[in-house]
Amino acid sequence: MANFKGHALPGSFFLLFGLWWSVKNPLRHIWQKRQRGRKQNLPPFFRKMDLIEGVLKTFFAFVGIMAEQFVPDGPHGHLYSEDWVKLMNWQHSTMYLFFGISGIADILITAPLPVPAGLDRLSLSLALFVEGFLFYFHVHNRPPLDQHIHSLLLVAVFGGAASTMLEVFMRDNALLELFRSSLAILQGTWFYQIGFVLYPLSGKQWNLENHGNIMFITMCYCWHYAVALLIVGINYSVVWWVTRRCEGRQGVETEIGLRKNGHLDSSSQKALLQESDEE
Amino acid sequence: MANFKGHALPGSFFLLFGLWWSVKNPLRHIWQKRQRGRKQNLPPFFRKMDLIEGVLKTFFAFVGIMAEQFVPDGPHGHLYSEDWVKLMNWQHSTMYLFFGISGIADILITAPLPVPAGLDRLSLSLALFVEGFLFYFHVHNRPPLDQHIHSLLLVAVFGGAASTMLEVFMRDNALLELFRSSLAILQGTWFYQIGFVLYPLSGKQWNLENHGNIMFITMCYCWHYAVALLIVGINYSVVWWVTRRCEGRQGVETEIGLRKNGHLDSSSQKALLQESDEE
Amino acid sequence: MANFKGHALPGSFFLLFGLWWSVKNPLRHIWQKRQRGRKQNLPPFFRKMDLIEGVLKTFFAFVGIMAEQFVPDGPHGHLYSEDWVKLMNWQHSTMYLFFGISGIADILITAPLPVPAGLDRLSLSLALFVEGFLFYFHVHNRPPLDQHIHSLLLVAVFGGAASTMLEVFMRDNALLELFRSSLAILQGTWFYQIGFVLYPLSGKQWNLENHGNIMFITMCYCWHYAVALLIVGINYSVVWWVTRRCEGRQGVETEIGLRKNGHLDSSSQKALLQESDEE
Amino acid sequence: MANFKGHALPGSFFLLFGLWWSVKNPLRHIWQKRQRGRKQNLPPFFRKMDLIEGVLKTFFAFVGIMAEQFVPDGPHGHLYSEDWVKLMNWQHSTMYLFFGISGIADILITAPLPVPAGLDRLSLSLALFVEGFLFYFHVHNRPPLDQHIHSLLLVAVFGGAASTMLEVFMRDNALLELFRSSLAILQGTWFYQIGFVLYPLSGKQWNLENHGNIMFITMCYCWHYAVALLIVGINYSVVWWVTRRCEGRQGVETEIGLRKNGHLDSSSQKALLQESDEE
Repeated sequence: MANFKGHALPGSFFLLFGLWWSVKNPLRHIWQKRQRGRKQNLPPFFRKMDLIEGVLKTFFAFVGIMAEQFVPDGPHGHLYSEDWVKLMNWQHSTMYLFFGISGIADILITAPLPVPAGLDRLSLSLALFVEGFLFYFHVHNRPPLDQHIHSLLLVAVFGGAASTMLEVFMRDNALLELFRSSLAILQGTWFYQIGFVLYPLSGKQWNLENHGNIMFITMCYCWHYAVALLIVGINYSVVWWVTRRCEGRQGVETEIGLRKNGHLDSSSQKALLQESDEE
Repeated sequence: MANFKGHALPGSFFLLFGLWWSVKNPLRHIWQKRQRGRKQNLPPFFRKMDLIEGVLKTFFAFVGIMAEQFVPDGPHGHLYSEDWVKLMNWQHSTMYLFFGISGIADILITAPLPVPAGLDRLSLSLALFVEGFLFYFHVHNRPPLDQHIHSLLLVAVFGGAASTMLEVFMRDNALLELFRSSLAILQGTWFYQIGFVLYPLSGKQWNLENHGNIMFITMCYCWHYAVALLIVGINYSVVWWVTRRCEGRQGVETEIGLRKNGHLDSSSQKALLQESDEE
Repeated sequence: MANFKGHALPGSFFLLFGLWWSVKNPLRHIWQKRQRGRKQNLPPFFRKMDLIEGVLKTFFAFVGIMAEQFVPDGPHGHLYSEDWVKLMNWQHSTMYLFFGISGIADILITAPLPVPAGLDRLSLSLALFVEGFLFYFHVHNRPPLDQHIHSLLLVAVFGGAASTMLEVFMRDNALLELFRSSLAILQGTWFYQIGFVLYPLSGKQWNLENHGNIMFITMCYCWHYAVALLIVGINYSVVWWVTRRCEGRQGVETEIGLRKNGHLDSSSQKALLQESDEE
Repeated sequence: MANFKGHALPGSFFLLFGLWWSVKNPLRHIWQKRQRGRKQNLPPFFRKMDLIEGVLKTFFAFVGIMAEQFVPDGPHGHLYSEDWVKLMNWQHSTMYLFFGISGIADILITAPLPVPAGLDRLSLSLALFVEGFLFYFHVHNRPPLDQHIHSLLLVAVFGGAASTMLEVFMRDNALLELFRSSLAILQGTWFYQIGFVLYPLSGKQWNLENHGNIMFITMCYCWHYAVALLIVGINYSVVWWVTRRCEGRQGVETEIGLRKNGHLDSSSQKALLQESDEE
């Protein structure tokens, strides 16, 4: 879908997930910090959130595939008739497919199944890698600015793939998760930017050959990231501030929880050892 | 051997090993999980499997070298006479040679010798690296689609080399092993795909210059990987399901095993410490 | 600011920070070593130094932005009027902006706030990455020597970004911090070298097309690094020698400190465990 | 020194060090294994060997610099007179300089000084990186085979730099040290190969434009590595076999050493903890 909507759709997905992660992850980390770092006691509430996230991701991926296939000028499931049919749409469908796989992995990992730890991060990393891989061969034979603006996206995509791959081995690292959120937000806003530049709403076309435009776009990309960092920072502060306010009211419950934990110390330690053995 | 068989041969080897790993590794991990993560108690059965794997790998590498050298249009061991003789076949032989070295390392590591831990993974990683290294300079001066379809292979090859190198330092990581299996399956099916595209059985040649074909092949590569992931996932589930069924019958034995382990706790812990010291 | 001052300004900043780090970090490490590796007991003095460093970094970044915007031939805050206005200056401002963000992260991390550990290193790494990213697209369409001398800078910039990223996960690694210092000094002196080559004070222009010049500059870059290593080595030795002299006089105090620590052993161990959980 | 000797000189250095490492490191590891992994008890003999290694490395680097500067057609210390004087020789001198720095670091680390752990590996990694960095810009404007044969060297050089950098963080990893040995031997034999190809002793010149030659050289590089692996394997086995024979005679002494260690258990554990804190 080479139009504004075709860029706004994935942009919205990434933006949504980036914003969501920038709230969910700090929430979990601050909760754990307040519980003196006992990871065993994560309330079912967090697991349920992860499940919903996985279901939504799978659903959005399905929506994306359907949209690419069945828009009026889409391939409607036809791949080859004399020549390849609408390969662009098929490539986009393939990208969505891998995010769908990542969503299924998210669901599996929340279920009480013997899934290897980190499967969700690995599959997300693979989905991002496939996205970047297809984009890399996607922008061939286009005007310079079009190529450049898509290549810049690859920095966020492969950066995200690499940092998510790191998360496979360093799970629950607060900083890596914030980093992932910021890169997802960057991808989201940049998809919108691509849409605005290539299919301007005002109708006034950009000169796709101008070197000044390329230089501006490069810099603009950094500004997008600065904004993404700002958003992540604000969300982190808000989560911290809100949880501290709530804590005042829940102080008694927490204390009871902590005392309980004190009794469970030795068993939870064992569980921890087991967990690290299993990996 | 620039024909269909020349691609089907290595394809079959990789496919076979990928499928085998996707069964063997989950089996070992699930077994260990059920034994509460005690790695000391791996039954000799697993060691024997590794030995057989090493012997087979060495044997297959030998078969590969012989096939490349002594097919009717092969170099028959001649390297230079006026000009280089059949360098392609020599390059393929070299690739098989390093897989043979990897097989020997696999055998050594199962023997009661003072071999440094991780030697098998390092040598496999090197074999994959050498394969990628030779392929990289292999595809010079060929039509675009031929070059592209071989370059795509490099993603699986170097990805496998990198992930296996990681395994040197993170041995017995269930996820990395599944990842390696999936990349091996991908290589296997992709070798077949190369064969089908360059030497079509139906006889109808592909246009090796068409950009649409290149775009399709890129996407097709991702589909192969999706299928590889599916296969790995199914094998994992089947192994898990089968072992759980068997467990019901063997419950008593396992319990005895566990009780024994309880007594051996302190000594096994020492062994663990020693092991990590030795590395 | 395409003149000597425009290169001397960032050069001085990097040189200053490199030198400062090559004194501060050894000081902290030697202090910790003398305290038998107890990290809990860092005197408030070190925290205050980090705070001042953060404030200075933010201030210098602000100065850099202002200088780039409001020099006589700067854009004075105008971005677009018919065509893009002084994009070079805007790009430099963007680089300073990210170092400013890094400075703010430095300040935040010294404050008693629930900031994730390693935020300062991650933001410094990002600032360096953005610097390298913008420089990479910066040197398009320039004479060979100009391009080459700027590209060489990228080795120090991306090397610094990578090593600082490593520090996120291996905090307080003495060697990585020395490495970062040496790369910062290298950047500093190299900015001066660029200034001297492109805008020679003597007025005698370099031939920007000569291959011999390019070869010399490549080698010269290595010499700069050898000097940077020498400076870091000297500073390390001086810090070590000075602290040993001071220790003689403070021996009694230290002993008391150590005895105190002996009593606090169990609690500090707990703190350590908590810290590693929190990350 | 663009002749056979100019390649044989560094080749001999690398070969010598590769062979030496492939004996020294297994010796230390097998010794430690026999001592039940206690690293504290390394006899002064090993430290002395490291010292001698450092002194020799520094000396060889000095010899290399002198040879490059004062051969009959060398620059004799002159850098610029009208044009740059013998930049090739100056570049080689620079490479030797960094190996000299690495030698000094080796000496420092054996001395009872507060040098950060891993400095020797980091400086060796830097020396290799600088070697690769200079070679990368070295081969400009040469015939294809000359370029290619030098580029292949970069694989061993940068591979060595990366693996030695890993050793900074994973010290005394037997496998990484064997890997480093094999890459050093590869560099050594490859320097000889370059000499034989570019300055054939028989006088019969190679065709530097022939694609077949390039393909053969690529494959030949892999064979060199296979031989390097074989040499490392043989040395490892010989060391193991010799030490086991010696052990028979020294059995009594070792037992006494072990018993002693048993008494020192708690103190050595403390030392271990301290060491990991200090890093």
